[in-house]
Amino acid sequence: VRIDVNRSVSEANDAIAEKIVHSLSGKMILCINVMGAPGSGKTTVLEAIVPQIGAARIAVIQGDLESDIDKKRMEALDVPTYQINTHSGCHLNAVQIEDAIRELDLEGRRFLFIENVGNLVCPANKRIGQHLNIVVSSTAEGSDKPRKYPIIFKDADAVVVSKHDLSTAVGFDESTYLIDIQKMNPHAKLVKTSSKDSSSFRALAKWLEHEWKRFYSQARPAQG
Amino acid sequence: VRIDVNRSVSEANDAIAEKIVHSLSGKMILCINVMGAPGSGKTTVLEAIVPQIGAARIAVIQGDLESDIDKKRMEALDVPTYQINTHSGCHLNAVQIEDAIRELDLEGRRFLFIENVGNLVCPANKRIGQHLNIVVSSTAEGSDKPRKYPIIFKDADAVVVSKHDLSTAVGFDESTYLIDIQKMNPHAKLVKTSSKDSSSFRALAKWLEHEWKRFYSQARPAQG
Repeated sequence: VRIDVNRSVSEANDAIAEKIVHSLSGKMILCINVMGAPGSGKTTVLEAIVPQIGAARIAVIQGDLESDIDKKRMEALDVPTYQINTHSGCHLNAVQIEDAIRELDLEGRRFLFIENVGNLVCPANKRIGQHLNIVVSSTAEGSDKPRKYPIIFKDADAVVVSKHDLSTAVGFDESTYLIDIQKMNPHAKLVKTSSKDSSSFRALAKWLEHEWKRFYSQARPAQG
Repeated sequence: VRIDVNRSVSEANDAIAEKIVHSLSGKMILCINVMGAPGSGKTTVLEAIVPQIGAARIAVIQGDLESDIDKKRMEALDVPTYQINTHSGCHLNAVQIEDAIRELDLEGRRFLFIENVGNLVCPANKRIGQHLNIVVSSTAEGSDKPRKYPIIFKDADAVVVSKHDLSTAVGFDESTYLIDIQKMNPHAKLVKTSSKDSSSFRALAKWLEHEWKRFYSQARPAQG
């Protein structure tokens, strides 16, 4: 008898993820898995869209090996936030998200953002109950990142090119980057942002609102 | 019967890693595992120390999900380089390194650098035949990285704070960063580098030469 351990773990995870999606959809909440390398600016992106979408419509689950630094940043903006510390874990899984959702009051929320562990490899293609994937990738990381980490970029619904103000200083080759994304994932929404310019996050907030409507404009919240 | 699959895989890996260390030590080659987040500047660090140590004394193993971009960068400096593509693999293992070493001509080399997959989580605490670990972490990633990814920083023999020229632009809080490293790993060698200033890599090259002597100054190369 040959037992495929990884496969059965992954199937159990996906069944729970499916349940989460179903439950959140019933509440007309859009769940967004925010992924990116360490220091790509995932929390900064969330901070910047809070005032544009409204703190009252957002809840956040923060994933990190250690520390609750990012949870505190979100709570400073009055966004209810649950911290998951994975310790040595390299990505979040559906069981952790199920537990976190149990602790969060999602009444009246439209968006549940899950900030995954900083990692361009392991969170890719994992189902944790998300409707959409956002990949944040900073200009400081270099323009070759889509070529080197294609799996996560191929599966992104939106790619946020963060720290755009550093482009010149770091010699970011934007045309190569954009051509590569276009080749591997032509449907991804592309947004350039800079923490120095709050208006640069408007297109992302608008896209999120648009996606919420795409999922739910025909829907009515489920009973109970 | 309970079978711990992960444990037996890890034990098999470590036995091979042990063999690699023994074999390289016999040839008086120091093997350095270079780790860091995607885009932290691992390849740039290697490029910068080549002229200081001498291309003839270096060999490199490159690890990346896809592409041979970094291999080409090293070969442009006349450094023999072997590319490992892990596809979805999030870190290198000892079997891959054993295979790579078989393909490299290490005659007369003093340093074998292994550039691991860009990842601050999974390569930590993995034995792949290295004598030393270097963690490269850029100012653009932010000063909270040691707190968020302590496992990899605790196990580093040297920490390279790269892209130091961006410190002011990105608001890098150097004193917090240094205090955190000092607390979790007081013996780590700390080096600040910038690709705009080749002299900033001198301290790292000097440390590497010093480490080589510490390992081998009393040794004689093994026969055969």
